[in-house]
Amino acid sequence: MQVESPSSGNPFHAGCPTREILDRIGDRWTVLVVSSLEAGPMRFSELSRHIEGISQKMLTQTLRGLERDGLATRTVHAAVPPRVDYELTQLGRTLTGLLAALDGWARTHMADVQASRARYDEVQAAVRRSG
Amino acid sequence: MQVESPSSGNPFHAGCPTREILDRIGDRWTVLVVSSLEAGPMRFSELSRHIEGISQKMLTQTLRGLERDGLATRTVHAAVPPRVDYELTQLGRTLTGLLAALDGWARTHMADVQASRARYDEVQAAVRRSG
Repeated sequence: MQVESPSSGNPFHAGCPTREILDRIGDRWTVLVVSSLEAGPMRFSELSRHIEGISQKMLTQTLRGLERDGLATRTVHAAVPPRVDYELTQLGRTLTGLLAALDGWARTHMADVQASRARYDEVQAAVRRSG
Repeated sequence: MQVESPSSGNPFHAGCPTREILDRIGDRWTVLVVSSLEAGPMRFSELSRHIEGISQKMLTQTLRGLERDGLATRTVHAAVPPRVDYELTQLGRTLTGLLAALDGWARTHMADVQASRARYDEVQAAVRRSG
């Protein structure tokens, strides 16, 4: 149970900004980028290789969102060519355990969820055939 | 660190079903529906009132998704009018602590995230003006 203070939100209330914050932190790409940055700063190209199949556009959007929300910083190093590093902020670090737990849940229960989906789809198909 | 077994997934791999599972469990409506059902079974209309501003269509879709993934059950009771209850499965119950932690994070850090967004948007606006 969460104790509500005047400065805290409640996502059960329509229009509460916590709903948008849930969208950000629950997003699959956020989970993967934040987990990647847990070990230390990374460049765009490193992140792009580490998270297979993420498009440049989606990675850019995710990083910009994390930066805007104060969860990661973007640092441009004077070099030729310029090197750009992304790093979790202190606030971003408070998320890592939580997102690792989400990731762990998805890995652990993948087979259960897939089996359930197959059963559900079979039943739906049978209902449609008999209807 | 998660140890990989042949039956577990890895959301860093493109096409791994864990990515879809992350989408489901990180979805804001899933977080709110699963948290609501933690205390026990609820009817559609109760859920609809409890989660302010959720559309009937979105609630229906969320519940169907949870049912398909084996996280909740839908039970129709013979009554006039028929009563339909939604309840977490054992698998769904393994998610409640995790999603409550996401919810708690969003509530606790709402003000920090909002302040960061305001600063970011101000800087971006200044950059655009000076450009």
